[in-house]
Amino acid sequence: MSYSLIDAEYLRLWTSAIFEKAGFLKPNADLAADVLIKADLRGIDSHGVARLGGYLRLIEKQRINPRPEIKVVRQTATTATLDADKAIGLISAPAAMKIAIEKAKEFGSGWVAIKNSNHFGIAAYHAMMALEEDMIGFAVTNASPLVTPALGAERMLGTNPICFAIPAGSEPAFVLDMATSAASNGKLEIAERTGKQIPEGWLTTATGNASQNPSELKNGGMLLTLGSDMAHSSYKGYGLSAVVDIMSGVLSGANFGPWVPPFVAFLNPVENQPGEGIGHFVGAWRVDGFRDVAEFKNSMDLWIQRFRQTKPLNTEQPVQIPGDFEREEEMRRKQSGIPLVKSVYENLQSIALEFNLPLNAAQ
Amino acid sequence: MSYSLIDAEYLRLWTSAIFEKAGFLKPNADLAADVLIKADLRGIDSHGVARLGGYLRLIEKQRINPRPEIKVVRQTATTATLDADKAIGLISAPAAMKIAIEKAKEFGSGWVAIKNSNHFGIAAYHAMMALEEDMIGFAVTNASPLVTPALGAERMLGTNPICFAIPAGSEPAFVLDMATSAASNGKLEIAERTGKQIPEGWLTTATGNASQNPSELKNGGMLLTLGSDMAHSSYKGYGLSAVVDIMSGVLSGANFGPWVPPFVAFLNPVENQPGEGIGHFVGAWRVDGFRDVAEFKNSMDLWIQRFRQTKPLNTEQPVQIPGDFEREEEMRRKQSGIPLVKSVYENLQSIALEFNLPLNAAQ
Repeated sequence: MSYSLIDAEYLRLWTSAIFEKAGFLKPNADLAADVLIKADLRGIDSHGVARLGGYLRLIEKQRINPRPEIKVVRQTATTATLDADKAIGLISAPAAMKIAIEKAKEFGSGWVAIKNSNHFGIAAYHAMMALEEDMIGFAVTNASPLVTPALGAERMLGTNPICFAIPAGSEPAFVLDMATSAASNGKLEIAERTGKQIPEGWLTTATGNASQNPSELKNGGMLLTLGSDMAHSSYKGYGLSAVVDIMSGVLSGANFGPWVPPFVAFLNPVENQPGEGIGHFVGAWRVDGFRDVAEFKNSMDLWIQRFRQTKPLNTEQPVQIPGDFEREEEMRRKQSGIPLVKSVYENLQSIALEFNLPLNAAQ
Repeated sequence: MSYSLIDAEYLRLWTSAIFEKAGFLKPNADLAADVLIKADLRGIDSHGVARLGGYLRLIEKQRINPRPEIKVVRQTATTATLDADKAIGLISAPAAMKIAIEKAKEFGSGWVAIKNSNHFGIAAYHAMMALEEDMIGFAVTNASPLVTPALGAERMLGTNPICFAIPAGSEPAFVLDMATSAASNGKLEIAERTGKQIPEGWLTTATGNASQNPSELKNGGMLLTLGSDMAHSSYKGYGLSAVVDIMSGVLSGANFGPWVPPFVAFLNPVENQPGEGIGHFVGAWRVDGFRDVAEFKNSMDLWIQRFRQTKPLNTEQPVQIPGDFEREEEMRRKQSGIPLVKSVYENLQSIALEFNLPLNAAQ
């Protein structure tokens, strides 16, 4: 497959300029671009600039507000709910995380639910904000329904990710950022693009039959939850996804389950929604609320080093620490540039034309 | 298979009396018995009175302290760390949850890490304490290593459960209590007892080969994490189990990973342990820290009702809400009595003899 390589810094500046032209204030444009480029750097291509065109269509349709007034609508010492005023999650989630971190500084922990928001971007961006404060970060979001609960044959849940970011000492931080479905949407897109079959246990047809054809998702198919089938505890993946949906949607007053609005502009939200927009939930625990930070970091380093030394099943594939792949990819792509597949590159070129802001590869 | 049926109230009183004879103060004996009987009532037979004999052996070996002085060793407004003084988790986790709930009453949320503890019992007991306060409860624990990380062939993690308990209105509460392994130890025990093969993806032999023989666990085999293999995202189950291990062990100052001490008295803890005892982590969020309680409960009822109505794959097997099975089992067993398999019943009879406290079935 052919890729166009683009320098990350150049792409970040261009992306920010596009967000500004679409109506964002400069600091928000910079932040939104930073979240997207971070996804591309970390190898989460499904959540990077590939999303930009979709966001612009949602702004046109006034489903994303480029100039939101994000407000705290309820709070205690360590909890708050934000009304994101139809902001994109790329903006509202960092705003919420800042509040959670401030609360944690003062009271040991902080938690913020967000309603009336839109697409979250990568959860790791938000949770990792806690790391520089020696806090453990947590971030979850619900998402438009593509996943069937265990025993079901209906799209009821999003791929509802869970992220924990945990600081370490001399070792890099532990960062788990995972969809609660058996496979992420991004993996299906890659299989579809490369014309490959997918493993059983990822997807069903619209009527619930097993399918190894990644295109079935577009025909009304359903993703399966982590665990894939009842014999392998798919009810656990369903349970985790449900918790994410409830913390993000029910607790904040956003939509939940099958009512979460679609991320694509050509699909309209269902009628009679029980809440407002999409919901997120973020938070932070101060490490020194529980243990001396230096002691904790020493133990985390030991944890990481010992797990790296786990006897491997295959000596060529050592056991990884959550976040290793993304961090290593980020180091590589900062050097080599971000690879954009043809369809994404062409989409960005059409945006460049629309906004009269040229984008050149190999910068 | 033949069972002895025992009335839950009678078994609770007898179990409490045994704990008292083993040195527990009366309130702690009552509490520990309550946690065990709750597990038996909810159908989690692996965590009920079947554990009693093992606990008594650990008390004899002074690895469980029957008269612990549980102390707060560090705290902020919303966080605390407890030294459980070698208490059993059946006692230390409810003590921690009480502190978390008090902190949440005052500040919106509360979080307690516990070190120097021992077996947790069912996580749901602790997390569900939050429900009557209109809070969301959270409880996790690490456990002695039986599970290999994805790509590994070494016992590094326990079955490390995650529990969320979320209140509802007219509907019963949502209670997810799940091991982060593909299958719980309890399921293997049932398969072994009934002479059945287990599905692929639950277990490997000591050298990492796939196995469908449940007895392989006793031969040094390893449980696999939720997801079972890399194609089905076993790194996600590993990541979740790792988070539980870190929150429970590293954050509290307890042991973690391969150093977590065994739950059976005939195996000694490994030497040069990095922490103290077993670790847990519990907490609570006040619902009204985020949203009006009545509104939240209405939305939770809608969530639950809508998910029950999910189009089923098979009309005879409707989609369940996490906690349904356990709650229904509890209602049945409160009426019919707790069924004890022969080996457990005989074990209790030998305890009855040892402590001169007769136990009669069919009470």
